[in-house]
Amino acid sequence: MKKSFYPEALLELINSLSKLPGIGKRTAERLAISLVKWKRDDLAKLSGDILGIADKICKCQSCGSIADEDICGICSDENRQQNILCVVEDITQIAVIEKSGSFQGVYHVLGGHISPLNGILPNDLNISGIDDRVQKNSIDEVILATSPDVEGEATASYIADLLKNHKIKITRIALGVPVGADLTYADSATMAMAIQKRGDFN
Amino acid sequence: MKKSFYPEALLELINSLSKLPGIGKRTAERLAISLVKWKRDDLAKLSGDILGIADKICKCQSCGSIADEDICGICSDENRQQNILCVVEDITQIAVIEKSGSFQGVYHVLGGHISPLNGILPNDLNISGIDDRVQKNSIDEVILATSPDVEGEATASYIADLLKNHKIKITRIALGVPVGADLTYADSATMAMAIQKRGDFN
Repeated sequence: MKKSFYPEALLELINSLSKLPGIGKRTAERLAISLVKWKRDDLAKLSGDILGIADKICKCQSCGSIADEDICGICSDENRQQNILCVVEDITQIAVIEKSGSFQGVYHVLGGHISPLNGILPNDLNISGIDDRVQKNSIDEVILATSPDVEGEATASYIADLLKNHKIKITRIALGVPVGADLTYADSATMAMAIQKRGDFN
Repeated sequence: MKKSFYPEALLELINSLSKLPGIGKRTAERLAISLVKWKRDDLAKLSGDILGIADKICKCQSCGSIADEDICGICSDENRQQNILCVVEDITQIAVIEKSGSFQGVYHVLGGHISPLNGILPNDLNISGIDDRVQKNSIDEVILATSPDVEGEATASYIADLLKNHKIKITRIALGVPVGADLTYADSATMAMAIQKRGDFN
């Protein structure tokens, strides 16, 4: 392969950027070139913000989400319903649920889903933490908000089974056709679920 | 708008990342979250590489491309034909030409194209530099490799006009149907150009 005409420092940056998810070699190249045109102050800001992640962000000791203190803002918020636990696979899903504005309880982040084919077993996830929280705190309901795919369903089943001896409500987020969607484009699995789980009108 | 549950440091990073070209708020969020999962060493490396751009990369005093010394590797390479100047709009285009392996001369980077509607006039570009180089060095040919769009053509015409009194060859990269393309999908403008600029077979 032909030696690149890019200076070493630029090649290093392209290489580092291409480690980000969804950023291929070409995109990394484009981003790096655009960074060359940035002012020094802006580069220092971005550089500092990235290092700030290592210095200022930690894991919430309660729910496993990200926090800037031992306990995250949601777990320490007295205005939230600390007795309702919503189990999600990843912190990005907390963002989605928070944006919907429909949940006032607290979260529990698993850090993934059970996927034996990829070597991810229940012990690799923050599952025992749910049991701990249910035992120690007065949890009334656990909402299983894992993704509605094979691994997410398996993970939800596993957790439901684990919690079955506790006297708490175990629920699953509703599956069906998305709000605002044109039924013409609904896939068969979703449509089947929407029919099967149909409820009384009003 | 609902206050985000993200820690301040994460919001700062999302904000900084979303200033990159082609990176919207959602992509910046996804990238930032993924960075949270990086090891401290990897974050420090990326952070350092970004700052390295400010510290180690400068503009080549000769061609305007990026360099890690006063004069870039191409301009200072005695094995390259220093008498053939290829004028490009942006450094990314040097990468494309270099990858093709078909050019052994040197480059001249304009830093954009003439676009009066966007307030970019000839004086805003590194155009006078071409004249300087042609006068000072013994340049035999200037290849105009601006993009084959309206602004690129206008820029090429402007430069050709500027250089017309020098006794040098002024050429333009060939326009036509791309190699390996299916003619079925060639656009009319390209097809018209390919017919108009047709050459003898062999």
